[in-house]
Amino acid sequence: MRLMSLTTESTSSPQSSAVQSMVVEAGGMAVVAEEGAFKRRIPARWLRLMGSEPRSMVRETGQRAFDSTSIPAEVRVRSTSFNSDEGLWEVRFEGETDALEIDFERLRSSSSVEQIDGPLPSPFTSADQPARALDFENLDSPAAVRSLLETLFRRGYARVRGVPTKEAAFLKLASRLGAHRGSSAPQVITEEVGANAPVNLSASRGCLAHTDEPYLDPMPRYLLQLCIENSLSGGELQLVDGMNAAETLAMEAPIMAAELARWPMLFACTGSDSDYRALRTLLETSADGSFQRITFNDRAALDFMCPEERLAVCAEGYDLLARILQREGLQNRFRVQPGDLVLIDNHRVLHGRSTHGAGERTLLTCSLHRSEVFSTWRRARSGNLD
Amino acid sequence: MRLMSLTTESTSSPQSSAVQSMVVEAGGMAVVAEEGAFKRRIPARWLRLMGSEPRSMVRETGQRAFDSTSIPAEVRVRSTSFNSDEGLWEVRFEGETDALEIDFERLRSSSSVEQIDGPLPSPFTSADQPARALDFENLDSPAAVRSLLETLFRRGYARVRGVPTKEAAFLKLASRLGAHRGSSAPQVITEEVGANAPVNLSASRGCLAHTDEPYLDPMPRYLLQLCIENSLSGGELQLVDGMNAAETLAMEAPIMAAELARWPMLFACTGSDSDYRALRTLLETSADGSFQRITFNDRAALDFMCPEERLAVCAEGYDLLARILQREGLQNRFRVQPGDLVLIDNHRVLHGRSTHGAGERTLLTCSLHRSEVFSTWRRARSGNLD
Repeated sequence: MRLMSLTTESTSSPQSSAVQSMVVEAGGMAVVAEEGAFKRRIPARWLRLMGSEPRSMVRETGQRAFDSTSIPAEVRVRSTSFNSDEGLWEVRFEGETDALEIDFERLRSSSSVEQIDGPLPSPFTSADQPARALDFENLDSPAAVRSLLETLFRRGYARVRGVPTKEAAFLKLASRLGAHRGSSAPQVITEEVGANAPVNLSASRGCLAHTDEPYLDPMPRYLLQLCIENSLSGGELQLVDGMNAAETLAMEAPIMAAELARWPMLFACTGSDSDYRALRTLLETSADGSFQRITFNDRAALDFMCPEERLAVCAEGYDLLARILQREGLQNRFRVQPGDLVLIDNHRVLHGRSTHGAGERTLLTCSLHRSEVFSTWRRARSGNLD
Repeated sequence: MRLMSLTTESTSSPQSSAVQSMVVEAGGMAVVAEEGAFKRRIPARWLRLMGSEPRSMVRETGQRAFDSTSIPAEVRVRSTSFNSDEGLWEVRFEGETDALEIDFERLRSSSSVEQIDGPLPSPFTSADQPARALDFENLDSPAAVRSLLETLFRRGYARVRGVPTKEAAFLKLASRLGAHRGSSAPQVITEEVGANAPVNLSASRGCLAHTDEPYLDPMPRYLLQLCIENSLSGGELQLVDGMNAAETLAMEAPIMAAELARWPMLFACTGSDSDYRALRTLLETSADGSFQRITFNDRAALDFMCPEERLAVCAEGYDLLARILQREGLQNRFRVQPGDLVLIDNHRVLHGRSTHGAGERTLLTCSLHRSEVFSTWRRARSGNLD
């Protein structure tokens, strides 16, 4: 067994100043790396996989160009050293001639949830509206994009005002926020309300808050809407935080909430050239019990897939959830004006329309994928967004 | 309490002949519907929601045009009757004048997993290749599309031969199979192997079987590839059934398999205009313990997100899984010829490339969403696909 301890003094390089020591314990087995709060024992073979040498990495993608199976089963660390010119740690492994660079940023990247999932969400109620609204001009700066997206991650929705009511402006903003591959093509939706309205928009009843397109797999993640015109009287946008609704249901009727998280609902939409069906539970929690996703769409909900004896409690839970979504205290409401751009997390925040008079409203809409929006946010945060 | 029993004789209508009886138990509470093997107690209010009247339904989408909250909390069945002219059951509810049609197809639609998830998957090994290969001409018929997709659902992959090696033919087939909204734009990938090859395709090492783009959320579901030309010597397509690999790992090292299903891996890909990161467990099981998804990509895998003391067992599980994927007995291998179209379930079947000599291979690829492919399958099955 071989034990080695190296400690370097701080240098002027910001990368190295934080590194305090790297200790090799029993060369074949583990390494302790210490850097401020970061401390981790790493098996030598795993360190070999995580380390990089310029020749073995595809610089453009940050991916390794070799397969892990090419690394011998038994890997032992020969030596570690701090290269103060480059400000980085190098590790030599027994039987190899090259020193591998140890990138602490990379080693630490999986231990920060924030880097993957964004800022922690905080639920909203009707008491704390409006969420941040930015003026359009500001989205030119990466800081404004970052601020908008962090509002979206925290609150589940965000608004931009004063956007030109033209399709070109919408496409430019959608692209700025991450509408690249995988996003849906922009659509124009005109809601005409009044005597000529189709049955599903009839009269002034409005529309219960819902999740969009729950019958699709994958289900759209972020919804982007730009209001082009709005001559409706009334017809406010109603936003409900699904985190609040799920927690309210769990407090008032814990058994119903548990059943809704267990038995899936069949959602369906059948068009002339499509037959979409998907099974999803209305509520989803992660392993630690925290809220993950709500799916509710009264018009597309077909039936629970559950044992016969559970249908009564599922149906009761469904009813209670629908009524909770209508409670005023849970709803943020505002009238969408021409030039308003609204971005909604469709896995968390439900949207509806309050009762209204006759008129017409035209929206441009598209959906954005999660990985594209988070990619934009990371680039805005690191200053890598033009 | 009101009890009523209705039994009708069989009529010549195929829809009605299967319906045997509908019994109202305690009018306000539940209904028993019997039809062959289908038997279910349904709360009266839920039946009211599931029932339809022409005026309350959007025929084009099969969705209701009203919100469930518009139904009174207390609903009682007044009477049921069988309309033999129309071959359907009608139910009248207290306080309402219209009779609602009861659509048994609709009532039963959530109780059949097959209708949602397709035929049951059966794992493949190297012993039972090749999976069904169809000639191109046959895809003109709905029966051939259905057969191809059912092979995909059962085996995790399917092949079509003799496709014209032109982009137009690829686009037509992609569209035939469901490349509508939500599918990725087709890409041309040319893999050039030899002296001029880029580092990540260097030499003849091949590429370990992997899942495509695990750093995207949503991760691509079905991969469609058309081979345009192939002058490589060797370089077979290797397909590994993730169900087999996961079950093998669970048998040989149950604790490692459990840890891989528990702690997520960080997958990353950083380009000049993107910064994709996603956390996913390598193995996923559903609530009943059955296999759900495998994600493995050696080149994009960055690190486990796990407590320090679990890293050693996770890293060992990773290594063992990588070695299992290389076992010959688990791999189906075949040489892809120009004109071969391959469809792969990217959540279940991993694909790799065996060692090869110099040459060039050009593929057209795109990905398809799950809901689009299943929509195509349902339409092919119901005869609704032109």
